[in-house]
Amino acid sequence: MREEFRNEMRSLEETLTMMARSAAKAMDRASKSLRDANLGLAESVIDADSNIDAFERQIEEMTISLLARQAPVASDLRTVVTALRIGTILERMGDLARHVAYIARGRFPQTAVDGKAYDLLVKMAEEAAHTGKKVEQMIENQDIDLAKQIEIEDDRLDELHRETFDLVLDENNDLTRQTVVDVVLLGRFLERYGDQGVNAARNMRFLITGLHVDADPGPSTEEEMLG
Amino acid sequence: MREEFRNEMRSLEETLTMMARSAAKAMDRASKSLRDANLGLAESVIDADSNIDAFERQIEEMTISLLARQAPVASDLRTVVTALRIGTILERMGDLARHVAYIARGRFPQTAVDGKAYDLLVKMAEEAAHTGKKVEQMIENQDIDLAKQIEIEDDRLDELHRETFDLVLDENNDLTRQTVVDVVLLGRFLERYGDQGVNAARNMRFLITGLHVDADPGPSTEEEMLG
Repeated sequence: MREEFRNEMRSLEETLTMMARSAAKAMDRASKSLRDANLGLAESVIDADSNIDAFERQIEEMTISLLARQAPVASDLRTVVTALRIGTILERMGDLARHVAYIARGRFPQTAVDGKAYDLLVKMAEEAAHTGKKVEQMIENQDIDLAKQIEIEDDRLDELHRETFDLVLDENNDLTRQTVVDVVLLGRFLERYGDQGVNAARNMRFLITGLHVDADPGPSTEEEMLG
Repeated sequence: MREEFRNEMRSLEETLTMMARSAAKAMDRASKSLRDANLGLAESVIDADSNIDAFERQIEEMTISLLARQAPVASDLRTVVTALRIGTILERMGDLARHVAYIARGRFPQTAVDGKAYDLLVKMAEEAAHTGKKVEQMIENQDIDLAKQIEIEDDRLDELHRETFDLVLDENNDLTRQTVVDVVLLGRFLERYGDQGVNAARNMRFLITGLHVDADPGPSTEEEMLG
């Protein structure tokens, strides 16, 4: 019984790691599809999203089965509950990468945004992909230092997001309506991807320490810029 | 022990209902603050959001305590796991209502958007508030018919959301940059509020029936309009 339990816990952690790898890969590809107007990459992100969704379902089934048959306690219970939460977070990260890929695909053969907006959004997308990679490593190694790094480094994404508002709210530049809309939405999707990374990091810290991290992140960038 | 368990389950359900009431009230007020440029209402939504966050923490503590001490199985286990998930969903609905309130506050004493955009966004906000109210009733009564209604009626919000894109992508109207940005973000926040309502409805159906609802909602409105 005990050995079976350990095997199931290990299997849950491995599934979560595979899911994190998929969510990281999705943003890595989405970011490159945006940078290079690469249709194939964008489509691969869109097609692969159902695999990420399937991982979420699988993790849910594993956790419910573990809870029902093994009644874990203490740190094992935290691991199970956190796996359930992180599964939801990673599913969302996959969706956000897919949203980015859809916009890249929709503008093909052009790049989704151009000029100043291009540099800014590509930088944001690369930053988001970087966060995805760190989330994957953090989950694989249950690494609390990486969790802290992810939380701190999210500021960079927020700062870039602020710059997108400076750009689109300036009536003096000649961005098309389509570009304004794309910049606002891509900015939102990429910032949310980073936020979900932070969310995963806080859950990982709870898993490891049993202590809650204060979850009040203050106003969002939009609230700050528009409120 | 058995009686204690029943009391704790009831208490969990009551807390979830109170939380749903707060998330519904948040959008009701946010929608009116947007319609009437009502500063006091907008601020009350922003101030009350920390209560919604506290509910989420409380539900998490209750579920972990229940799982650790009572090891529920079958439909009780489904209730506990679903409560945890719906807690996360309602917290997000509160955040989205707060985002809307921030924009209403930021444009005071003007209304956030005007002309054609005003009618459309006010209609969307009222639709979202309506969804919030239904989610509250569904959770209070564990009502599967309401769950199905919420899923079906979300189409109305999607249709209005599509109309916002027709509006902002039309280069021939004279919307300011600020209005374009506000319409895109308000549209996104209100649609997401509705999506989260659908999400809560699917979880409620799982709670009641033990069966998963196919969770693939297809492309989002943005993906459809921009991708």
